[in-house]
Amino acid sequence: MVTWTPVAAAGVAALSLIAALVFSRLVLKADAGSERMKEISGSIRDGVFAFVRREYSYIAIFVVIVVILISVALRNDRGWMIALCYILGATCSLAAGFAGLAISTRANSRTTQAATGGLAGALDVAFRSGAVMGLTVAGLGLLGLTVCYIIFESILGFHDSANIILGFALGASTVALFARIGGGIFTKGADIGADMAGKVEEGIPEDDPRNPAVITDLVGDNVGDVAGMGADLNESYIAAIVAPIAIGASGVVYQKLGVKAMVLPLAIAGAGVACSILGSLFVRAGNNKKSAQSALTLTLYATSALAMLASFWLVWGIAGRKNIGLFWALLAGVLSGIVIGLTSEYFTSDHFRPVKEVAKSAQTGSGTTILTGLAMGMISTVIPVAAVSIAIGVAFVTGNHVIHNGGGVYAIGLAALGMLCTTGILVAIDAYSPVADNAAGIAQMAEVDEETTQIVESLDSVGTTTATIGRGFAIGSAALAALALFAAYAHATGLTKVDMIGNYRFFVGLLLGVMTPFVFSALTLSAVGRTASALIDEVRRQFHDIAGLREGEPDARPDYRLISDMTTRTAVFEMLIPALIAVVAPLLIGGFLGVESLAGFLGGALACGFVMAVFMTNAGGAWDNAKKFIESGELGGKGTPTHAASICGDTVGDPFKDTSGPAMNILIKVMAVVSLLFVPLFMK
Amino acid sequence: MVTWTPVAAAGVAALSLIAALVFSRLVLKADAGSERMKEISGSIRDGVFAFVRREYSYIAIFVVIVVILISVALRNDRGWMIALCYILGATCSLAAGFAGLAISTRANSRTTQAATGGLAGALDVAFRSGAVMGLTVAGLGLLGLTVCYIIFESILGFHDSANIILGFALGASTVALFARIGGGIFTKGADIGADMAGKVEEGIPEDDPRNPAVITDLVGDNVGDVAGMGADLNESYIAAIVAPIAIGASGVVYQKLGVKAMVLPLAIAGAGVACSILGSLFVRAGNNKKSAQSALTLTLYATSALAMLASFWLVWGIAGRKNIGLFWALLAGVLSGIVIGLTSEYFTSDHFRPVKEVAKSAQTGSGTTILTGLAMGMISTVIPVAAVSIAIGVAFVTGNHVIHNGGGVYAIGLAALGMLCTTGILVAIDAYSPVADNAAGIAQMAEVDEETTQIVESLDSVGTTTATIGRGFAIGSAALAALALFAAYAHATGLTKVDMIGNYRFFVGLLLGVMTPFVFSALTLSAVGRTASALIDEVRRQFHDIAGLREGEPDARPDYRLISDMTTRTAVFEMLIPALIAVVAPLLIGGFLGVESLAGFLGGALACGFVMAVFMTNAGGAWDNAKKFIESGELGGKGTPTHAASICGDTVGDPFKDTSGPAMNILIKVMAVVSLLFVPLFMK
Repeated sequence: MVTWTPVAAAGVAALSLIAALVFSRLVLKADAGSERMKEISGSIRDGVFAFVRREYSYIAIFVVIVVILISVALRNDRGWMIALCYILGATCSLAAGFAGLAISTRANSRTTQAATGGLAGALDVAFRSGAVMGLTVAGLGLLGLTVCYIIFESILGFHDSANIILGFALGASTVALFARIGGGIFTKGADIGADMAGKVEEGIPEDDPRNPAVITDLVGDNVGDVAGMGADLNESYIAAIVAPIAIGASGVVYQKLGVKAMVLPLAIAGAGVACSILGSLFVRAGNNKKSAQSALTLTLYATSALAMLASFWLVWGIAGRKNIGLFWALLAGVLSGIVIGLTSEYFTSDHFRPVKEVAKSAQTGSGTTILTGLAMGMISTVIPVAAVSIAIGVAFVTGNHVIHNGGGVYAIGLAALGMLCTTGILVAIDAYSPVADNAAGIAQMAEVDEETTQIVESLDSVGTTTATIGRGFAIGSAALAALALFAAYAHATGLTKVDMIGNYRFFVGLLLGVMTPFVFSALTLSAVGRTASALIDEVRRQFHDIAGLREGEPDARPDYRLISDMTTRTAVFEMLIPALIAVVAPLLIGGFLGVESLAGFLGGALACGFVMAVFMTNAGGAWDNAKKFIESGELGGKGTPTHAASICGDTVGDPFKDTSGPAMNILIKVMAVVSLLFVPLFMK
Repeated sequence: MVTWTPVAAAGVAALSLIAALVFSRLVLKADAGSERMKEISGSIRDGVFAFVRREYSYIAIFVVIVVILISVALRNDRGWMIALCYILGATCSLAAGFAGLAISTRANSRTTQAATGGLAGALDVAFRSGAVMGLTVAGLGLLGLTVCYIIFESILGFHDSANIILGFALGASTVALFARIGGGIFTKGADIGADMAGKVEEGIPEDDPRNPAVITDLVGDNVGDVAGMGADLNESYIAAIVAPIAIGASGVVYQKLGVKAMVLPLAIAGAGVACSILGSLFVRAGNNKKSAQSALTLTLYATSALAMLASFWLVWGIAGRKNIGLFWALLAGVLSGIVIGLTSEYFTSDHFRPVKEVAKSAQTGSGTTILTGLAMGMISTVIPVAAVSIAIGVAFVTGNHVIHNGGGVYAIGLAALGMLCTTGILVAIDAYSPVADNAAGIAQMAEVDEETTQIVESLDSVGTTTATIGRGFAIGSAALAALALFAAYAHATGLTKVDMIGNYRFFVGLLLGVMTPFVFSALTLSAVGRTASALIDEVRRQFHDIAGLREGEPDARPDYRLISDMTTRTAVFEMLIPALIAVVAPLLIGGFLGVESLAGFLGGALACGFVMAVFMTNAGGAWDNAKKFIESGELGGKGTPTHAASICGDTVGDPFKDTSGPAMNILIKVMAVVSLLFVPLFMK
């Protein structure tokens, strides 16, 4: 069983890619809609790929620099092999993003068109588009990783190959960091800019074709919520597989389990992919929103349950019956992920008190809206922190029970993997929502009939709850995977114990580490602000300069392209510094302040990054839904001062929940992987 | 020299109290103004002491509970002695607050009256009132502490008395926590409520007598910025003295320096008090704002320089010439404090780019104002973190150089003391500003002539820059003192080395510790929001129910008292939970998760609390001054949408900079002292 497991995992991954291909065929077979719809969809696609070209060329330059860095700095530590894996990891991530965008920008008008036949048809197209993304993300990630593993294991043996495939993880991580930040800045800059210049200043509806920023906004849905999110989960998935491998490749775990310690994570990942393929085949929804909603939730839970059963069997089969304790770690991980997700749901759904409180506070103005939202987001960190702490405790204790003095952190790595082995389905559910958003925009711009418009607009909210739970998995697993990588770092440096009195270095590192998520947020938040401002200025200029635009005269067409190009340039430029920080900061601290400081730095960044991610995502979600709650007619409804205050909350919340917050999860893992990879350099 | 040092320190402290008495005589001798002014001042005083009575009675109950807790839980570890010191520490802090309020609520109308003769006279009265507070805070703190030290040293000897006087520090800390949070909630709830219900909703000017919340707002200046701030610095001061004593009382430092290790901090504190007395005697200002400003800044720098000279001499004389390295630690502390203060000045003064950026972002609405302010506050943490890190490094290395393997953390404690030994003058400069605020309010309500009004209004801004630098000292010293206390904790538990791989407890503690400042902020921010909301509702009711109030008819007088009582009840009630968290959290974590978790918890809370404190204070200051910048006529000036957006920023910034941010400094020290005191309990 053990010998063939990596090959089997690669096989399942390949199967996943084939399934993605089948789904994409099904999407493309659907009717692309009227000429107007095709035209709009084409404009969006042009904008998306203009962004992708520019972003990818920056990433390519960055990849080349890192490749040189790795090859030179680690030349005596098989740097070129790591660099090779790095290139492959980056390429797989870029390819998955490309595939996702290729389908999402074609599924949008097809979803609108399908909606003329009812909700079920529209849901089918949108969900299949998401499934293409999900199965590609998981399939390419696992395939690339196992290929690296198989090649380098055959050359170097188990023990040494683990370090090499870290390069693959770093490749995926750096791409994800760029894609998440660049995409996040683009999408939220465009969103805020379009809203403020259009809805607020000109008083025209959302997605009105007169708004020069409207196409840019729709482009943003794709580059942020499809490509950015996909790369993010690709990275999380790979980090979750690599983390237990990094620990299992040496020390007590390796002594006790041997190669099984490294094969087990691959096997679980493979099982997760298989379950995801099954899950995505069985999404069937009736023609009403309720049943669609339960279909998605059911799919998520059923796939997770199936993956857990498979994992139980795999732990039993590979690690052996007496090591079954490792399974409880996996289960603890999944349960904590669900708790984190449900907490988010509680804090961000208008069915519960927090969002109602935020909406109520809008009655006394935008200042109190912000204060209440911030407070809700901050208090919302309690349960996720407790859940992750318990998962850490359970995983650690059960892991150490089966493999004394070292099994604990290995099990923490497995717990992270337990949450994310079903990445395929998690991405599918998440990536369907931007397609629905796009479809709604196209319906608005192409002026289809009222009923269809309503159907596509309701489509978006169908997946919200399920996606929120899925994001809980991503956040929780980020903390656990980063902790496992951190432990691997501590192990590699021999820093099993940190001196607190005889050395100030750990504490200074801790201080710098805790500061980093704040600096990172500052940079991304202000980048969104600057992008939005530039866009608002240009929209104002177009309304001023293009005669008849405001009145909607047929000949007066706004210059959509100019705005998209401008936003692309700003977003891609603004993503550079925060992304560089993630890679360079650990190198500087490790190089100048030493390995103890870097240990403190990683610990501080991890803890603070996790708390900030939860805080920002939940605060953003609460503001967003408080606004929607008011727009649904509560507390006076649209156009009231209360509504205006809630828009202020949403403006702040947008980059919180879609740019800074989620990027934090990648940040902490990139820093951990960089630290772990460059240990040989710091130890000199 | 060594034997008599504590007595000499007590003598200087007593002198400081006498100087305070003299200053208060001088203030009371000044003309209290017209009948109307006296009446207003009386109303403010009534409100202040109504608040104080209620707040103090809650604190008294809390003190009794803690006394019982200490006496029972530490019954085998001289609990009753600690409890005795605890009572004394709490009493001294309460007494200092009481004295400060007694004079500030009498100096306010006297300052207004003195302003009729020009700026210099008004400055004299206001500054002397501040000096009373400053010299009482420092004098009572040092006197109480040295008395405890002298008594218990004679009973138990040096070594054992150090632990007992921690009780004194905890007494001061808990009172400070209550006073800072309760006062902060009151003052900001009243400030926001009065502004929104008066300025925004009714369109009447600030401090207009028709606004039923106007007296409450003026009461808030006293209970928040006089009593809250005074208790805060009293606590910081004592913590800074106790931190090096706690470390010096055992281990290598004690072996090498003996009792000198404990006497040196007392000596430096005494020298600081003496310098503060001198400094406050020499504040002389001309009749224009510029010269007044430079007079204050000069006083601050001259006093600090003098205190450094004295410290040099004391280190040389007490610790000996070959241990002069300890002085460099003190100097590093002071320099880092100045750097932190200057950074705050850069980020919060409208002379520099950050405030201008925030003001500019108000042009695109309140959402971008908030985003820019948050980003500025977050990025502003970089230099303070670097400054404190460097101070830690310098203190540690020089300290360890003179006393190998232990002198490092002792020197970090001394660095904290270096910043705060001049507490007397720091408080004087800070506590003068609320008196000026009050004077401006009284001028407005009593309708004095235009020129006098302008003089009192300009008075407030005179001390701003100097106070900002002083606050840099408070923030920096909080981090260093907490770090020294943390090291003392680690030493007491024998946890010199923390296991990172073999035990998950440290990391779980770290996660919980990093979360705590977020939870604490959430509670204080939402408390301010709730208080403000309740107040707004009541103001609306009075405008609705009292006929002729809006029109300003002479018979229609608002019910000032009702609003003050209401705000008092809410604020005092709301302060309970955050204050309890600070005391109970370490006990729970130490008791249930063990000493390693508590170590992680303290480290995480310290690092995150420091970063959050800087972030919140600077963001709040930036918003505040961006609003003032716009109100001065820039970017369109008052009444524009830009101004409205800047008001939103200020509303958020108010509790950031005056409630949550500063309370963080106390939080981290309270938790460290509680942990250190209860070590015997956790070790069982």
